[in-house]
Amino acid sequence: MTEGKRGILFVLSGPSGAGKGTVCQALMARQPDLSLSVSATTRLPREGEQHGVNYFFKSPEEFHAMIAYNQLLEWAEVYGNFYGTPRNFVEEKLERGVDVLLEIDIQGAMQVRHTYPEGVFIFLIPPSATELKSRILGRGSETDESFQRRFGAARHELQRMKEYNYVVVNDVVDSACVRIEAIIRAEHCSVHRNLELLSEW
Amino acid sequence: MTEGKRGILFVLSGPSGAGKGTVCQALMARQPDLSLSVSATTRLPREGEQHGVNYFFKSPEEFHAMIAYNQLLEWAEVYGNFYGTPRNFVEEKLERGVDVLLEIDIQGAMQVRHTYPEGVFIFLIPPSATELKSRILGRGSETDESFQRRFGAARHELQRMKEYNYVVVNDVVDSACVRIEAIIRAEHCSVHRNLELLSEW
Repeated sequence: MTEGKRGILFVLSGPSGAGKGTVCQALMARQPDLSLSVSATTRLPREGEQHGVNYFFKSPEEFHAMIAYNQLLEWAEVYGNFYGTPRNFVEEKLERGVDVLLEIDIQGAMQVRHTYPEGVFIFLIPPSATELKSRILGRGSETDESFQRRFGAARHELQRMKEYNYVVVNDVVDSACVRIEAIIRAEHCSVHRNLELLSEW
Repeated sequence: MTEGKRGILFVLSGPSGAGKGTVCQALMARQPDLSLSVSATTRLPREGEQHGVNYFFKSPEEFHAMIAYNQLLEWAEVYGNFYGTPRNFVEEKLERGVDVLLEIDIQGAMQVRHTYPEGVFIFLIPPSATELKSRILGRGSETDESFQRRFGAARHELQRMKEYNYVVVNDVVDSACVRIEAIIRAEHCSVHRNLELLSEW
């Protein structure tokens, strides 16, 4: 992780049902040097949730000030609560040479790409339409209508792949992790992140 | 190696003294699925060298016909003998989904970049100027003048790094291999090599 001087922001995103959460968790367990981005939110803490670990809990006023002062890499409102990615938290890690992993939906990833284009954008996809169907059904409590809506949305979202740098098929969680780890290592070798090597000669 | 449908051409290059040959040999031993590009040459076979394994041995007439018919990805004349990379050999492997590794000097790599820009260009460098000095001296039989010439040339060649995709520091051969293997795996996940996934949905 320390081949380049500055850390790299890796954005893990993809359609619903791709398994972003599971892969992200597995990756964090395998890569202790990687730092997971912590979101800010206006929703109230649930039992056991810690400020600065699970979320940065903010009042609506604080959150809106963060928006106003451009302190969020992206933000969204979901069912009346606000969620966002604090720029400072990410920047401080990167400055110290630590890589940051941000797990986020496609809309959020596209905002981050706008505010932080130096990031590396990884699109996680299910191995097949059949597998996606069974994953959506596996969550249970789906009416036929809601299933069709979710499946249609996921298929639609897949077309956003072109706006990412990498696509990782999540067939087996460990294999997906191995691919993402290779992407992390390779990005540290990219020439444009290592131009300072030239001045060392 | 089979995540994308078509194989990828990886060009391993770098200044003299970077250890290209050693890394290439180690990589081939670790990666049996990788295919090493075999050069064509007009020089005579040495004892034990096999046609199609070490080189494709060609008459000067045959070699010049290959140049004329654009059948070489690059070529050069060295002390009166011709050397080149047959396009057919590489293309056939790539078509079959096999990755090809080409170890070559910087001048050759720049020719390949021109004739085959879809390749992935990896620049191998020694860990430091001090280490490069000791590697050049380690080859022995260097006069002070020839040492200065070689060292100066290598420093000059280092500036070509900017024309490559990746830079790999060859501090320890196995570590350099791990980085190159990550690059290979990551490139198979690049979105522009996987656009056919979109049509599968």
